Amino acid sequence: MDRPIAGVFCASVTPVTADLAPDHAAFVAHCRHLIEQGCDGVALLGTTGEANSFSGSERKALLEAAVSAGIAPDRLLPGTGVAAWSETVDLTRHALSLGVTRVVMLPPFYYKGISDDGLFAAYAEIAERVADPRLKVVLYHIPQFSGVPITFPVIERLRARYPDTFVGIKDSSGELNNMLALVERFPNFSVLAGADPLMLPLLRQGGAGCITATSNLVASDLAFIFRNHADPAKAAEVDAAQARVVAARTRVSQFAQIASIKTLLARSTGHANWANLRPPLLPLTAAEAAEL
Amino acid sequence: MDRPIAGVFCASVTPVTADLAPDHAAFVAHCRHLIEQGCDGVALLGTTGEANSFSGSERKALLEAAVSAGIAPDRLLPGTGVAAWSETVDLTRHALSLGVTRVVMLPPFYYKGISDDGLFAAYAEIAERVADPRLKVVLYHIPQFSGVPITFPVIERLRARYPDTFVGIKDSSGELNNMLALVERFPNFSVLAGADPLMLPLLRQGGAGCITATSNLVASDLAFIFRNHADPAKAAEVDAAQARVVAARTRVSQFAQIASIKTLLARSTGHANWANLRPPLLPLTAAEAAEL
Repeated sequence: MDRPIAGVFCASVTPVTADLAPDHAAFVAHCRHLIEQGCDGVALLGTTGEANSFSGSERKALLEAAVSAGIAPDRLLPGTGVAAWSETVDLTRHALSLGVTRVVMLPPFYYKGISDDGLFAAYAEIAERVADPRLKVVLYHIPQFSGVPITFPVIERLRARYPDTFVGIKDSSGELNNMLALVERFPNFSVLAGADPLMLPLLRQGGAGCITATSNLVASDLAFIFRNHADPAKAAEVDAAQARVVAARTRVSQFAQIASIKTLLARSTGHANWANLRPPLLPLTAAEAAEL
Repeated sequence: MDRPIAGVFCASVTPVTADLAPDHAAFVAHCRHLIEQGCDGVALLGTTGEANSFSGSERKALLEAAVSAGIAPDRLLPGTGVAAWSETVDLTRHALSLGVTRVVMLPPFYYKGISDDGLFAAYAEIAERVADPRLKVVLYHIPQFSGVPITFPVIERLRARYPDTFVGIKDSSGELNNMLALVERFPNFSVLAGADPLMLPLLRQGGAGCITATSNLVASDLAFIFRNHADPAKAAEVDAAQARVVAARTRVSQFAQIASIKTLLARSTGHANWANLRPPLLPLTAAEAAEL
């Protein structure tokens, strides 16, 4: 089985200054750190990255900052899916113009209860208008935020019409059974876990890796699990790494997850900006931060 | 009681060409028609206007086209609220730069389950950064699409801090009781019905009018109701107009509402582009159009 995109990808948080502007220098330093820790790539500008709190021009500037600073374009998987597909086309073309060929793409997420025909039509518009054979799209299934599930019939039609473009899915539903059903149903398609603890069970049954939030903190453990999960001689070390991943995930889920991750990064890096979030998300309270 | 914004405002549909580009000429003609029919203004680029299927630059170009064509800026109430408040600031400033001072503003709608503090902080950022005393914002409560209800405590704090900016709300929840509770709780605040049949009962208990979809088709009836609902001598005519409004609303709710309105406009104007929608929304099927 071929998996076009495989590995541990960090759903990176996005640092902002006290005035809430993206902090490019801190972001680039974080990308370097994640790659040093063993991440195969950085999935910037996803839900954890507060992507939908940044304008199109802010998103472009962040990606440009990473590429300009020397982060290899093939290590970057930006989220480019926004509510309006015409803007998704623009953001995706911009990524390609920088040599970034792999993107994670939300469905158009304002209208709810849309039909499979409508969702297919939206993704098809994007593929047709971007019209770049280099493009590889990871579909982004996160119904609890998008309100628009990516259904099996839609994936089937996208795979049939654009097999070299829609090559994988990030499943952030939290339901392992859905991920396994995707693996079963779609060969040569990369199913990536959206929750850190689920990468290991998914890998054992044909999954391709993960795009996850806790990897901002425990990337080396996830990378170790990814590379060694099938080696019986490493079973104990894999189990120990998995236990640390589960513990980290539990820790950052006690309070708001993104705020918790940022608070911990502020401590580990000594860079205070990390504790900031853009409204409508808010930093942890002092009491929460102390308890964390 | 003072109602800063009052009247019948049409949540205008947005025509697109066969290639799905905004059809500026047809849109301007529709604005003129709505005003001739008695609309106090055109609330373009709302949910019915498929706003969140258009990019920022497409939204700006549509508003510019209307103003350039001579539609008075004080007749235009564009939706400027998008997921990212930094872009909401940009769209709102753009409207103000054209002399358009009244906007309808969705909350940031990607993240769900956000706190009142977070929602207040997002709207406050917008007010502080736009920083234009001319600005009048109609909050947009439509939880079934946004997933982010605008709660009473948030309205109370916005009214206290920015009383001249956050002057009203479009309530598209469909719940008359919520609208009446808003009227009761917030004096000198414009509560506008988001559903056509509810304008009349709301007006009778202190509401300020409506921003609605069916007014694309029955604007003159709504305008008649608005101007005459308190006149006992016109009671029979008001009731007859209300019956036509209810019938029109029922008719376009049989199938997908936006597609139904557009189909009927394609017929009434003879302009075929009106039947087009942007994915993920789709035109009516031939069978649906025939039955309609």
